[in-house]
Amino acid sequence: MAVYTEVGADELEAFLAAYPVGRVLSFKGIAEGVENSNYYLHTEKGTFILTLFEKRVREEDLPFFVGLMEHLSGRGFPCPRPLAATGGRTLGRLAGKPCAVVTFLDGLSFRRPTPEHCRQLGAAMARMHEAAADFPMSRENTLGQKSWRALFAPSAPRANEVKAGIAELVQGELDALERDWPPGLPGGIVHADLFPDNVFFIGSALSGFIDFYFACTDFLAYDLAVALNAWCFEPDGMFNVTKARAFFAGYEGVRRLSADERAAMPILARGAALRFLLTRLHDWLHHDASAFVTPKDPLEYVGKLRFHRAAGGPAALGLG
Amino acid sequence: MAVYTEVGADELEAFLAAYPVGRVLSFKGIAEGVENSNYYLHTEKGTFILTLFEKRVREEDLPFFVGLMEHLSGRGFPCPRPLAATGGRTLGRLAGKPCAVVTFLDGLSFRRPTPEHCRQLGAAMARMHEAAADFPMSRENTLGQKSWRALFAPSAPRANEVKAGIAELVQGELDALERDWPPGLPGGIVHADLFPDNVFFIGSALSGFIDFYFACTDFLAYDLAVALNAWCFEPDGMFNVTKARAFFAGYEGVRRLSADERAAMPILARGAALRFLLTRLHDWLHHDASAFVTPKDPLEYVGKLRFHRAAGGPAALGLG
Repeated sequence: MAVYTEVGADELEAFLAAYPVGRVLSFKGIAEGVENSNYYLHTEKGTFILTLFEKRVREEDLPFFVGLMEHLSGRGFPCPRPLAATGGRTLGRLAGKPCAVVTFLDGLSFRRPTPEHCRQLGAAMARMHEAAADFPMSRENTLGQKSWRALFAPSAPRANEVKAGIAELVQGELDALERDWPPGLPGGIVHADLFPDNVFFIGSALSGFIDFYFACTDFLAYDLAVALNAWCFEPDGMFNVTKARAFFAGYEGVRRLSADERAAMPILARGAALRFLLTRLHDWLHHDASAFVTPKDPLEYVGKLRFHRAAGGPAALGLG
Repeated sequence: MAVYTEVGADELEAFLAAYPVGRVLSFKGIAEGVENSNYYLHTEKGTFILTLFEKRVREEDLPFFVGLMEHLSGRGFPCPRPLAATGGRTLGRLAGKPCAVVTFLDGLSFRRPTPEHCRQLGAAMARMHEAAADFPMSRENTLGQKSWRALFAPSAPRANEVKAGIAELVQGELDALERDWPPGLPGGIVHADLFPDNVFFIGSALSGFIDFYFACTDFLAYDLAVALNAWCFEPDGMFNVTKARAFFAGYEGVRRLSADERAAMPILARGAALRFLLTRLHDWLHHDASAFVTPKDPLEYVGKLRFHRAAGGPAALGLG
């Protein structure tokens, strides 16, 4: 959860005068996302989310993020749609921060997804990959494989404070992943953070994706690897192959994976586990105690990484 | 701001099956109130606030708070209306906490109220006092004048760490207020916490009051004293008599103050300043650093208390 910046009613009303939303009826900080400040906004014309981009999001990346949501919603993909202010701009500035107003997306996120949720996630992810295929912008994955060694450096001296052996595990993985990372797979726009928090359902039907602020250009199969790790392990750390099979089947119902993509899934899943281990480790060791954010436990991803090191090929992941 | 308790989607849907709200469309923790966890809830039947009562609210007081909102909204006073579950009960239990579902009240709170806002606040407060006149329950003001000595005790040894002289100021006030507190004034149900946060406006029109979790039985004029302190001082600490005159005029347009109430306003305002000084001092010295709450500065109320000690009778407060 996070609400970092306070916005006064007068300031808000002056800002919104440039948007076609009518009179403000309600405005409240909400506990959603950890990178930005998000507000529920109800006006005469509907309900919206106002997002103030805090310092963890690079301002030069905002046109990509906002442009992507605009593109996807224009293709009928269910996600927040940025509103244009007078003159057509979708990025504004409020309380000294860059910001955007997007349509409010209904739905609930399930912390304990079922196989059916996983199937729908897969199908929706494939539709998102296809809808983004003609999006003209690109953004390097700043948390991609090439970044991991540098990402670990500030945590390395203290990694074993979190748990003995982490430093050695990570060093070994950095080497193995540098050596074995696939040289080329079908690429495109990936969400790169499709955790259950970011996928909404109404009743049993998927209603959309939110939080595109890690989206970037990478292997499409890497998006599956991130989500596989986030959706297909149980709270006790066990991998649930039924959920994984449902997830891949949902995806392949829309877009078939190539033989290379299937073969690469184990190493991609290992890399995706390392990426979240590294950012959580960093936040755990360096978090600002005054921020309204509880850092996530890096050990969850140590377990997932160890699973993938030991697993035996695509079939073990449900790609039979 | 505060969201303390996490509620899962499954748990929520099971709980809401007993309420006439239809299918859940959205559910988000919101940054509102500091005593409880509040969630925005959108369903097929409308928008609501779900409140989980955290440990600072005594469970035995909940029927009073919820009954009061039910009574006031039944009298047409604009405030959240508690929803009854199957069987008629308005108090439930979710995630191990007592809770209530109330209608969502539109509106924005203004941190810098204008004299016109103050006038409307006064009028609405008087209407609330009248609408509550036949509410059959009562609740002692657990933060009323008789409680202040005991409230100060845990802070007394460290009060001067916050600012030199606070301990002596408070000791003197405890004695003076015990001696001079009026023995009897018209009593009834008071909100007792009508800060700008708890009063909503749509455009320039007051849309209602929220957060009745300090409401109690006390002198009606004490409610005015609390709000006078919260609404009629400028950020630089200066008392704004124009706002105070507008506030009292708004109140008296609905309910006339008696001569005794007018005469007592200076001492009530002094007491109300001490009450918020004491709770802020306590929270400042004893707050839990892990809670998502920044304690409010007690010095703001030291300044207000000093103003009231020096002020010269009701006319100086705008009761000319």
